[in-house]
Amino acid sequence: MNMKRRSRAAWEGRVDEGAGRIVLGSGAFDGEYSLRGRTEEGQRTTNPEELIGAALAGCFTMSLAAVLTEQERPAARLDTTATVYLEKRDEGHVIPRIDLETTGDVPGVEAAEFQQLAEEAERGCTVSKVLRAAEISVRARLGES
Amino acid sequence: MNMKRRSRAAWEGRVDEGAGRIVLGSGAFDGEYSLRGRTEEGQRTTNPEELIGAALAGCFTMSLAAVLTEQERPAARLDTTATVYLEKRDEGHVIPRIDLETTGDVPGVEAAEFQQLAEEAERGCTVSKVLRAAEISVRARLGES
Repeated sequence: MNMKRRSRAAWEGRVDEGAGRIVLGSGAFDGEYSLRGRTEEGQRTTNPEELIGAALAGCFTMSLAAVLTEQERPAARLDTTATVYLEKRDEGHVIPRIDLETTGDVPGVEAAEFQQLAEEAERGCTVSKVLRAAEISVRARLGES
Repeated sequence: MNMKRRSRAAWEGRVDEGAGRIVLGSGAFDGEYSLRGRTEEGQRTTNPEELIGAALAGCFTMSLAAVLTEQERPAARLDTTATVYLEKRDEGHVIPRIDLETTGDVPGVEAAEFQQLAEEAERGCTVSKVLRAAEISVRARLGES
């Protein structure tokens, strides 16, 4: 399976006063974002950091479901929270770490083993791997959209 | 500014027959996802790969808006598409590359300079940097959700 998945973002105006939109390629979501929404607490608009968290939580949880399915002990339910840390450093903003916390209702699995299986799922998760290394290209052109 | 951003994912059942939900911490989006939605074309549900693309497109586009604002040549409009490549390899699925294509309506900026400024914006973008390196921890516990 080789696939391409696309998403889009747009922006109008200055970074501090303007605003943008983020649009998922599937059409499942299309919403506003802004500098304030990104840097202040309690905002209702999305931001890139929570999208990274959503991608990782989604990938990891499906990966853990796959590990448990292979073992013929599928989960009744898995619930995962990804916490993305955003820090301001001299060189700019960085995301130094992301914590995954998952709670499972998994018949036939004990606590220590569940932790091991979760670590295996994290290592195999496509998004975990890309958070460690991906080539990014950029092509910019002028013109009215 | 040190912040934490959270998102969540849940899953019920086998990986092939079950399904899950992805929920953004801001509350801006809450939607289903599934293995089929991730591995087949033309699906209307979200998937982790397009969320990675959305995070990068959003971060990069805001970063480019910031670069242009610093130069006092703010963009009338920027439009970016992120294309995320998903490949199946012997070791599992990987995302080997992501292409950013941006179109700008930017008074006072010429094409070659716009490309340079876009590359500068990509290098400075928080999500670009995390796609090259982030520490990820995982904690798993059993129990009903």
